[in-house]
Amino acid sequence: MSNTNSMSKKVHNFSAGPSILAPETIQACVNGITNFANTNLSVLEVSHRGKEFVAVVDETKALIKSLLHISDDYEVIFLGGGASLQFCMVPYNLLRTKAAYINTGTWSSNAIKEAKMFGQVDVIASSEDQNFNYIPKTFTIPNDADYLHVTSNNTIFGTQMRQFPNCPVPMICDMSSDILSRKIDVSKFDLIYAGAQKNMGPAGVTVVIIKKSILGNPKHNIPTMLRYSTHVEKESMFNTPPVFPIYAMYENLKWVKNMGGVAAMEERAAARANLLYNEIDNNPLFETTVKGEDRSKMNACFKLKNEADNERFLEATKAVGISGIKGHRSVGGFRASMYNALPIESVQVLVDVIKNFK
Amino acid sequence: MSNTNSMSKKVHNFSAGPSILAPETIQACVNGITNFANTNLSVLEVSHRGKEFVAVVDETKALIKSLLHISDDYEVIFLGGGASLQFCMVPYNLLRTKAAYINTGTWSSNAIKEAKMFGQVDVIASSEDQNFNYIPKTFTIPNDADYLHVTSNNTIFGTQMRQFPNCPVPMICDMSSDILSRKIDVSKFDLIYAGAQKNMGPAGVTVVIIKKSILGNPKHNIPTMLRYSTHVEKESMFNTPPVFPIYAMYENLKWVKNMGGVAAMEERAAARANLLYNEIDNNPLFETTVKGEDRSKMNACFKLKNEADNERFLEATKAVGISGIKGHRSVGGFRASMYNALPIESVQVLVDVIKNFK
Repeated sequence: MSNTNSMSKKVHNFSAGPSILAPETIQACVNGITNFANTNLSVLEVSHRGKEFVAVVDETKALIKSLLHISDDYEVIFLGGGASLQFCMVPYNLLRTKAAYINTGTWSSNAIKEAKMFGQVDVIASSEDQNFNYIPKTFTIPNDADYLHVTSNNTIFGTQMRQFPNCPVPMICDMSSDILSRKIDVSKFDLIYAGAQKNMGPAGVTVVIIKKSILGNPKHNIPTMLRYSTHVEKESMFNTPPVFPIYAMYENLKWVKNMGGVAAMEERAAARANLLYNEIDNNPLFETTVKGEDRSKMNACFKLKNEADNERFLEATKAVGISGIKGHRSVGGFRASMYNALPIESVQVLVDVIKNFK
Repeated sequence: MSNTNSMSKKVHNFSAGPSILAPETIQACVNGITNFANTNLSVLEVSHRGKEFVAVVDETKALIKSLLHISDDYEVIFLGGGASLQFCMVPYNLLRTKAAYINTGTWSSNAIKEAKMFGQVDVIASSEDQNFNYIPKTFTIPNDADYLHVTSNNTIFGTQMRQFPNCPVPMICDMSSDILSRKIDVSKFDLIYAGAQKNMGPAGVTVVIIKKSILGNPKHNIPTMLRYSTHVEKESMFNTPPVFPIYAMYENLKWVKNMGGVAAMEERAAARANLLYNEIDNNPLFETTVKGEDRSKMNACFKLKNEADNERFLEATKAVGISGIKGHRSVGGFRASMYNALPIESVQVLVDVIKNFK
């Protein structure tokens, strides 16, 4: 940072999203805003069709394909509107008769609601009966479904789908909150979407990874902007894309690569989660709201057994510079979101507060 | 700028959009990325529901309402997806039976195409017969139309609607490329939308000004994210908004206000346009592609009478640091986009090149 004084108070950023970015990414954003690619212009004021920004889009796609080992059977596009817009774009483009959904939380529920406008929706499994504190394991995927929709990580409830089902129909996944934090076999999926604002970059851009073979021949008459093929054909340049969010994501993906790629991010995530969950599991005053293997490595939801102590604990975390730790209102308690850029030192600071809490 | 050396070569930025922003706005963006609202965090990594960013959204709305003298009969919302997404959102929400459109260029044509999916579309006037080089003046607005849609300024063809019709039905306007550059009577309109990336801020956010009385009772079953009422009810926070583009727009609106508001922007626009058009009108080698009062004060389209000299002229502009002057492929020749932040000194540099061209 150019002004070290103003950043002298260290903040441990556990925000659920938008969320922490690496200092290197933030400095690169400052550089791009000051002088983008030696144009003597800010990245905020250049044409999206200029060769310098077209290169950023091309390199961002290439980085995502390389980091996630995506074959040429897939296209990668960048859209505005957030993952919530995908909740309707997926069925608009792909639901012909019937789709299967697994309901693991708020975002799945929202996706299901939108899909119902476009056809029959079979919710083949749900953990709503226990306030979404587990991942359903037993379900039958109908062979005649147009697709199965799953959510890999549930930010609000702190669960994560450790393994993806073997799926007889195209599988679609909302990976907004754990993409790039774990190795995945993209070839198992026909479409993956993710809002950038957890592990990929700042808010304002959504990444869609789409198998070319599922494009074409949609049932519905789809507005141009909501058609995946529009953005695939125009390489995310049908209209003015969210230029700066893409640029910041590009810089952040370079940081991920420099750190050792997705394998390194997976190790970091495991180390952070182990450190925090071990302390909570061994501490008589605290407990996690999710048990066992379904616990998310991204969002650890936990509570005090005596909830009367909540405010005092929150104050203790604030005193050491911890930010964004309050649980979502649907769950209560606390939530530590530990995305790619969070250093384990920040988790240690939280663990020390938990350990020392009387 | 922190690094003055890297910005030592002055660029005269005539880009059609995304386009020039004031140095003050760019510096404020650097400050927000370094330390946002004294949080010791970057604006790229804070929660959109934190009190600091909620304040930015509230103040941005208030600034737009104040700068454009918008009454409390209207709501102001911020959306992703660009103005192109509005081409379908407008008819999705508001077209019940029939809508009237005036076709003044590429963006109007795109809006018409999307509207046809949702009902009957009457194109009551068009300048397509002369490659959109004028604004149609004679037309009849059907009393039974659900709305009339107009485009206030046509970036590609360089025309601008100087006066808006008296309209017996709700009037909707795409003001993407001249909002905040001229005084307008918002009460004449029921809905105004504008991509930010010309006069308001960087790419990635679209402003919609909507009369409360036209919300409610839509004919179509609209996906949640495409419903205006969703975003009005949730005050642009239904899902994660494009945080940084909104922040940058906020900083830019403060700059507009400090410069004297829309009245000052209108004077600046008139001074720039007069300077450039006067030179072209009096120069025997050049001519404008649009004649008379329909000429845009934002985008001046002009050409060399002898097109064989095009490359040599382009080189002469590049030599003095002029950027983004090449005309759109639909028109050819040259286009000088002169948005709010462009200093008249940059126009003088262009005028000098034109004057000295042999």
